[in-house]
Amino acid sequence: MAHELVVRGGTVVTATETVRCDVGVDGGRVTALAETLPAGRRDIDAGGLYVLPGGIDSHVHIEQFSSAGVYCADDFHSGTVAAAFGGTTTIVPFAAQHRGMKLRSVVEDYHRRASEKAVIDYAFHLILADPTEEALQEDLPRLVDEGITSFKIYMTYDRLRLTDEQLLDVLSAARRLGALTMIHAENHGMIAWLSHRLLQAGATAPRYHAISHPRVAEGEAVQRAVALAELVDVPILIVHVSDLTGASAIRQAQTRGLRVYGETCPQYLFLTGEDLDRPGLEGAKYGCSPPPRDRASQEAIWKGLVDGTFQAYSSDHAPYKFDESGKLPKGERTTFKEMANGVPGIELRLPLLFSEGVGAGRLSLNEFVALGATNHAKLYGLYPRKGTIALGGDADLVLWDPKRRVHVTAAMLHDRTGYTPYEGKPLTGWPVTVISRGRVLIQDGQLHAEPGSGQFIPAARSDWARPRGVAVPELARLREIGPALD
Amino acid sequence: MAHELVVRGGTVVTATETVRCDVGVDGGRVTALAETLPAGRRDIDAGGLYVLPGGIDSHVHIEQFSSAGVYCADDFHSGTVAAAFGGTTTIVPFAAQHRGMKLRSVVEDYHRRASEKAVIDYAFHLILADPTEEALQEDLPRLVDEGITSFKIYMTYDRLRLTDEQLLDVLSAARRLGALTMIHAENHGMIAWLSHRLLQAGATAPRYHAISHPRVAEGEAVQRAVALAELVDVPILIVHVSDLTGASAIRQAQTRGLRVYGETCPQYLFLTGEDLDRPGLEGAKYGCSPPPRDRASQEAIWKGLVDGTFQAYSSDHAPYKFDESGKLPKGERTTFKEMANGVPGIELRLPLLFSEGVGAGRLSLNEFVALGATNHAKLYGLYPRKGTIALGGDADLVLWDPKRRVHVTAAMLHDRTGYTPYEGKPLTGWPVTVISRGRVLIQDGQLHAEPGSGQFIPAARSDWARPRGVAVPELARLREIGPALD
Amino acid sequence: MAHELVVRGGTVVTATETVRCDVGVDGGRVTALAETLPAGRRDIDAGGLYVLPGGIDSHVHIEQFSSAGVYCADDFHSGTVAAAFGGTTTIVPFAAQHRGMKLRSVVEDYHRRASEKAVIDYAFHLILADPTEEALQEDLPRLVDEGITSFKIYMTYDRLRLTDEQLLDVLSAARRLGALTMIHAENHGMIAWLSHRLLQAGATAPRYHAISHPRVAEGEAVQRAVALAELVDVPILIVHVSDLTGASAIRQAQTRGLRVYGETCPQYLFLTGEDLDRPGLEGAKYGCSPPPRDRASQEAIWKGLVDGTFQAYSSDHAPYKFDESGKLPKGERTTFKEMANGVPGIELRLPLLFSEGVGAGRLSLNEFVALGATNHAKLYGLYPRKGTIALGGDADLVLWDPKRRVHVTAAMLHDRTGYTPYEGKPLTGWPVTVISRGRVLIQDGQLHAEPGSGQFIPAARSDWARPRGVAVPELARLREIGPALD
Amino acid sequence: MAHELVVRGGTVVTATETVRCDVGVDGGRVTALAETLPAGRRDIDAGGLYVLPGGIDSHVHIEQFSSAGVYCADDFHSGTVAAAFGGTTTIVPFAAQHRGMKLRSVVEDYHRRASEKAVIDYAFHLILADPTEEALQEDLPRLVDEGITSFKIYMTYDRLRLTDEQLLDVLSAARRLGALTMIHAENHGMIAWLSHRLLQAGATAPRYHAISHPRVAEGEAVQRAVALAELVDVPILIVHVSDLTGASAIRQAQTRGLRVYGETCPQYLFLTGEDLDRPGLEGAKYGCSPPPRDRASQEAIWKGLVDGTFQAYSSDHAPYKFDESGKLPKGERTTFKEMANGVPGIELRLPLLFSEGVGAGRLSLNEFVALGATNHAKLYGLYPRKGTIALGGDADLVLWDPKRRVHVTAAMLHDRTGYTPYEGKPLTGWPVTVISRGRVLIQDGQLHAEPGSGQFIPAARSDWARPRGVAVPELARLREIGPALD
Repeated sequence: MAHELVVRGGTVVTATETVRCDVGVDGGRVTALAETLPAGRRDIDAGGLYVLPGGIDSHVHIEQFSSAGVYCADDFHSGTVAAAFGGTTTIVPFAAQHRGMKLRSVVEDYHRRASEKAVIDYAFHLILADPTEEALQEDLPRLVDEGITSFKIYMTYDRLRLTDEQLLDVLSAARRLGALTMIHAENHGMIAWLSHRLLQAGATAPRYHAISHPRVAEGEAVQRAVALAELVDVPILIVHVSDLTGASAIRQAQTRGLRVYGETCPQYLFLTGEDLDRPGLEGAKYGCSPPPRDRASQEAIWKGLVDGTFQAYSSDHAPYKFDESGKLPKGERTTFKEMANGVPGIELRLPLLFSEGVGAGRLSLNEFVALGATNHAKLYGLYPRKGTIALGGDADLVLWDPKRRVHVTAAMLHDRTGYTPYEGKPLTGWPVTVISRGRVLIQDGQLHAEPGSGQFIPAARSDWARPRGVAVPELARLREIGPALD
Repeated sequence: MAHELVVRGGTVVTATETVRCDVGVDGGRVTALAETLPAGRRDIDAGGLYVLPGGIDSHVHIEQFSSAGVYCADDFHSGTVAAAFGGTTTIVPFAAQHRGMKLRSVVEDYHRRASEKAVIDYAFHLILADPTEEALQEDLPRLVDEGITSFKIYMTYDRLRLTDEQLLDVLSAARRLGALTMIHAENHGMIAWLSHRLLQAGATAPRYHAISHPRVAEGEAVQRAVALAELVDVPILIVHVSDLTGASAIRQAQTRGLRVYGETCPQYLFLTGEDLDRPGLEGAKYGCSPPPRDRASQEAIWKGLVDGTFQAYSSDHAPYKFDESGKLPKGERTTFKEMANGVPGIELRLPLLFSEGVGAGRLSLNEFVALGATNHAKLYGLYPRKGTIALGGDADLVLWDPKRRVHVTAAMLHDRTGYTPYEGKPLTGWPVTVISRGRVLIQDGQLHAEPGSGQFIPAARSDWARPRGVAVPELARLREIGPALD
Repeated sequence: MAHELVVRGGTVVTATETVRCDVGVDGGRVTALAETLPAGRRDIDAGGLYVLPGGIDSHVHIEQFSSAGVYCADDFHSGTVAAAFGGTTTIVPFAAQHRGMKLRSVVEDYHRRASEKAVIDYAFHLILADPTEEALQEDLPRLVDEGITSFKIYMTYDRLRLTDEQLLDVLSAARRLGALTMIHAENHGMIAWLSHRLLQAGATAPRYHAISHPRVAEGEAVQRAVALAELVDVPILIVHVSDLTGASAIRQAQTRGLRVYGETCPQYLFLTGEDLDRPGLEGAKYGCSPPPRDRASQEAIWKGLVDGTFQAYSSDHAPYKFDESGKLPKGERTTFKEMANGVPGIELRLPLLFSEGVGAGRLSLNEFVALGATNHAKLYGLYPRKGTIALGGDADLVLWDPKRRVHVTAAMLHDRTGYTPYEGKPLTGWPVTVISRGRVLIQDGQLHAEPGSGQFIPAARSDWARPRGVAVPELARLREIGPALD
Repeated sequence: MAHELVVRGGTVVTATETVRCDVGVDGGRVTALAETLPAGRRDIDAGGLYVLPGGIDSHVHIEQFSSAGVYCADDFHSGTVAAAFGGTTTIVPFAAQHRGMKLRSVVEDYHRRASEKAVIDYAFHLILADPTEEALQEDLPRLVDEGITSFKIYMTYDRLRLTDEQLLDVLSAARRLGALTMIHAENHGMIAWLSHRLLQAGATAPRYHAISHPRVAEGEAVQRAVALAELVDVPILIVHVSDLTGASAIRQAQTRGLRVYGETCPQYLFLTGEDLDRPGLEGAKYGCSPPPRDRASQEAIWKGLVDGTFQAYSSDHAPYKFDESGKLPKGERTTFKEMANGVPGIELRLPLLFSEGVGAGRLSLNEFVALGATNHAKLYGLYPRKGTIALGGDADLVLWDPKRRVHVTAAMLHDRTGYTPYEGKPLTGWPVTVISRGRVLIQDGQLHAEPGSGQFIPAARSDWARPRGVAVPELARLREIGPALD
């Protein structure tokens, strides 16, 4: 019987393979890989194109309500449409708790909004800002069972940061539950101390954001996060690493045998602190935390992608308009401390990495697929349904034209931020056809999907989140002499 | 039309995927992967089994004539039969030059012997003991074009070792030719100095072999090899790493961004120096270079397999009988310096790693496949034809029963060494059916293959052997001011 | 004219020299060093003895009122008498602020008590528990001018610990004032989290103190302290380092060129965590923070003394009786969390290091003098008046018999703790005559000094506390574009 | 009775002390240090001056006959006169064996020449180019007994270099004899390979010397030297370290607890590879091995002086005229491979370090004294007679004017090289009076000493050359099971 869909004549690329073959799809899943398949009910010609697993962007802020009172420009429709146009077929945004909120209602809220609007599939991470005993003991186990198996916690930001004891509470819960914890690692005290002094001295321009978040704050916090995780014996993932300080702390932990994963983002490969120097408040467009550093940092981050320090490459898409709703809550009087933190990138994430990574010879095609899709699925329990092209997995396929040249402009993009930090950048390589669970979402530059056609993908407990079973000496001793602590 | 062969109902495992599916084979190649394939002309039931890519053992000594006058116990028939029974469908033995020999005749000789006897496929590495100008300038380019794209060189052994200048000559040639260089890294001076003093003091027993090859000799030589390769800017692979000293030198090089690969072997995971302490000359059975170390070394090597320091797990199969033809050329009077170096392992390599790696929870199935097969193919230019299960690749398939329990005895093995260092070891997991290019080689414990049915696989230049394009400061400066050196 | 005192015939040892010569003393100071001096008004025969600079113990708790309600067993009389008997002629105890206290009245209080009772000279460090704006801006500058040029701050203990921002406030003030900051570096969150869980589980015995203060807490806090100091560019000293985790973090900082100093104490060379395992509450006698670790830790600390990681060897004398006034505030029901932290050691500090350091061949005599006296003077601005034997310096001399054998018992000691953790230890080498500013304090086992005869030594700003003048990249950038922050 | 000489009113500086006092001298030795001494038979006013121990330059080539046929410009007269004018009162030149020469006659020859001409004191290191069994077993023990307790060996240079086995032979002998081994550490193979290719390509100019001695050759050889010394368990000193590669290899060894010492020289603080770029053959004046590197290397070397990586700062004075007798043996046709290796520096060594080290705030006065004098004496068994100012030691005193400004010109210097690499450099601080064993050698710019008035100082076995007593695992094992190897 004919396949519902056959993608014909392309070069299928996974994290391991680069193979000329046809892909047969039925019921939204890949059902056949063969050198030549008979004609399907629908055939798509992929001649001259790469057939890649749909990208997974596991770090995006969509329709997220900030406790500081700023709003994401993107809702689940615009955000997922932009993702799809960029070759991403699954996102893992945050269900963000603020202090005082019940976790279950937070999650329900995000579920509701996403289910009505998303055009691609999604899972959720849970931001934990208030890890009460009740949250840890009652809510989290249920949420993990319901498919939310990753938490994000913050070491900085007044309204989000946890104390070291709270970090340990969450890490310990994650260990018990088999969940993976993502950590925003910057030393809060350094940032607060510098910011206070800068503002006191009248230094309010966006460029001072980069001064107030020094590298040493990132390096310190990564080392502390590693130490806390080592005490508890639980894997962690350090998000949005910007520089050698963070990268080498992760690498050292890995060398010591710890399960510490790292993520980086396009802003640390393509922007620098000088972008924040632009006149007036223009620099605010490039403000994110940690901030972009310098050329040497970019090289260190590329090296970390090559040598395996980083498993994931995400966008940290944080879409804020350049007006009072986002970047400039106080208009012209907005200080670097008040401007919304974050840059958009959901649509350009993969094209940027392809052009400068694969195109420039830094990464192989297989590494590109691993960093942009497969590893995300493995880290967050979406594999084998997502993240690769294999029998039985969802038919999330991207037909990638390696020769298509594109000049980036904000106008061509589909998110609602209104600007792009990569304006004017020439890229080579672009996703031309995007398929999600066998549905052709994007073709010939047109979207073919209804709001709400994306589905929630419940995440399993990831193998990559398993503890090593190695206790620090004191806890090893405790096992011999004392009571169990968990 | 029906496939020639269908492997049905197994769980196909690659370096990335673990997927329930059927595999269709035609003309010796994989032609279809599908959830369910129609009946083939021949069907093999893989229910409850893993379907793995055939193992690749890229470090084996077969029918190799030693310049010291000892002989391998295995010829290309016994060696390849033993490999096949252990789940290995491709080997990369050495075509070994001795000083004074012409490279082309060396290679022809090995080609002739292998083509007559091998039952599985093979490629060759070239051992370079005499890198004359003629060899480097005339022979090597031709041999690389003919599919021999990896060289092995020695930093120790009187008859094989190269000086640092010769090492640079070979590395520089490898860079020019796109070949990968394997290095046996031990400091010759330390070994010679200690051996001389030990023999002078009458310490001749096998146990002194382990004394005369100290860890520091391995660590030193790895660092030197890395430095030489860095000067030339060419990737290298350090073979048979035994201990933390070597592993951490490799890891540091990788952290600095160098393309330095590492290989280890079962003897460094399962034996220790104490095995050489056995009474009389019995310890000679466990003598190899570098020697097995201790428990801490074993742990360091396991850690290196997990953290990515090592790409390849090989046997370094060196089959010497425990008699005057091999281990004991002078009978009872054989000193540790005269006994043949090496242990057999071609058949048990994969079962050992599976049982203690996958079974004990240290490695995932995918890592097992990468270390035992896929990475070898990528390192040595055999990919995508070998090393994975993908459309168009050779149908080298191993049906692996993860529950089969085996107690190792020499009698059950198929090489001609006559003993195994792993005698008595209980293992769980075993290759039950082995398929090479669609031919069922092993089934129900029986071999179904004629001598000479194996083929030579010409190796391509490997992507992994590409130089980084980063020059040390002095050579970067030379580019500005002076003549090109290559 | 005859010298007031001549120490004749000894071997004078300083941090650099070992010289046979006579020492002439007038007006409390060294006025002549000569091969042979004419008879003085008083002559002391030092034949066969070493003449050492009087020891300096820069980490002692004397007559210190704990905010937890426990009392030091020693006042300024018993404490300084014990010090003198152990060869120490200068101590630097703490003037300890508790939260809410005014710094100036704290200091006045300690001055008053010490001036009435001390029999040897002393300076003060200031413990800062409440670094208010007023304290930093008004009190500290005056106190530094008055000779208190070192601060101690805590990263743990509920009543003492500072936040990272407060640590930066103090470090920044220290930089401005030229003061040296001593840091008790343990991660508070880890300790609190573990303690809470242990107590909840009913694990209250002293041995759980060692579990609740894991090595990783020390290593983490040292790295954080280094990062904070690097941000501000100011030297720091990490006190009482117990293990490789802390030592290697210090060494790495030093290797990076940072001015990070380290101190260790006898308890980390001679005790282990097993000492806390004694039955009942007996283990409480060995409880200090950080706790003693194990044999490997001891070796790491010895190595740090040899390789220059540590500049100072102090006692951290914290004398608590083994009763309700000290170690056991709740009697038999005292938990590990309530028992007073600290061990006595002021008298045995130097004999322990001499016997096991110099006697066992680990340290040279000169290193012994540097670690026990000279470096303390240089670190804390007491040099050249204290810490060496040189013209013009105070005649603080210890005549040390390198062959005197002593078996340690609590009964022979002069502090009021009532026990010693080193009970029964055999030592070789002992201070037999102790001279302070030319006064013979101890001779033939007798004390010859009135309470109050010790003097306050105002400390100068130390050269070793000078900033490097190297800014982290962000603050270097700030210098170009923005306002000065200090 | 009046002292023969009193140096009055100066500030005496040692490695530890900085003290205002008078120095009394009798019989060539320091006999009194006092705040005020009575008038001596001769009084020298040191008011406003530092009184420093005479400098020790432990790395100088004087009247050394090169096996390549070039000659030192300086004999023992001109060399020691230049040293004295620069504040150095003891040198340790080399007695240089060439292959085939008998050690005892080599030493006699140097003794004879030095005794006739030297105006300051001297000891000898022995260059071992031919470590035969006879040399090691018979000659060395006698020479060590006669006061030559340090050996120098080479890892490069065709006529001098030893194989790794020979290095082990010498290190092992040094261990037995209590001698200290200095090692010229550069990888010979890299240098030879690059030089050969450069010359083949017609790149003969002096600048190619710097290309042919890459940093990686230094780093590699230092690591190998450390490994060889670790195997034997014997201290070593790495001479003339030029860059971070060497410095960090030394630092790592020290951190591991090994006794590895480091030396550096002015050319690595004040010159760079660009100096070799000068037009024509002019660059040859700056050619030494290893070559000067770049600014970052200079900073790394300064850091190594501050953090204790380096114990000794020497000149490596190698005075070759810029003519056919030295730098240009083939005149205009001299290639970089033929030009004599080395730069002069014996006279400017201390003024350079004082001006840029002490004057610029990088080093304390005490560190300056330790690096320029005291540590040399301790390393090479000349302490306590040389290297400090202490009772009983030789009265080798330098009166140093910290404010004297000098503009360097070749014309003002006293060696016979005919040029200085530091031409035109402004310095602050200069030795104005130089005293050797109580004799005023230099005063008011005039020399007051006869040729031959310098004495040979037999060196003792240095404490710093004692083995650690720690065996590598294999040799520790050997102690349990086997024969002793030494």
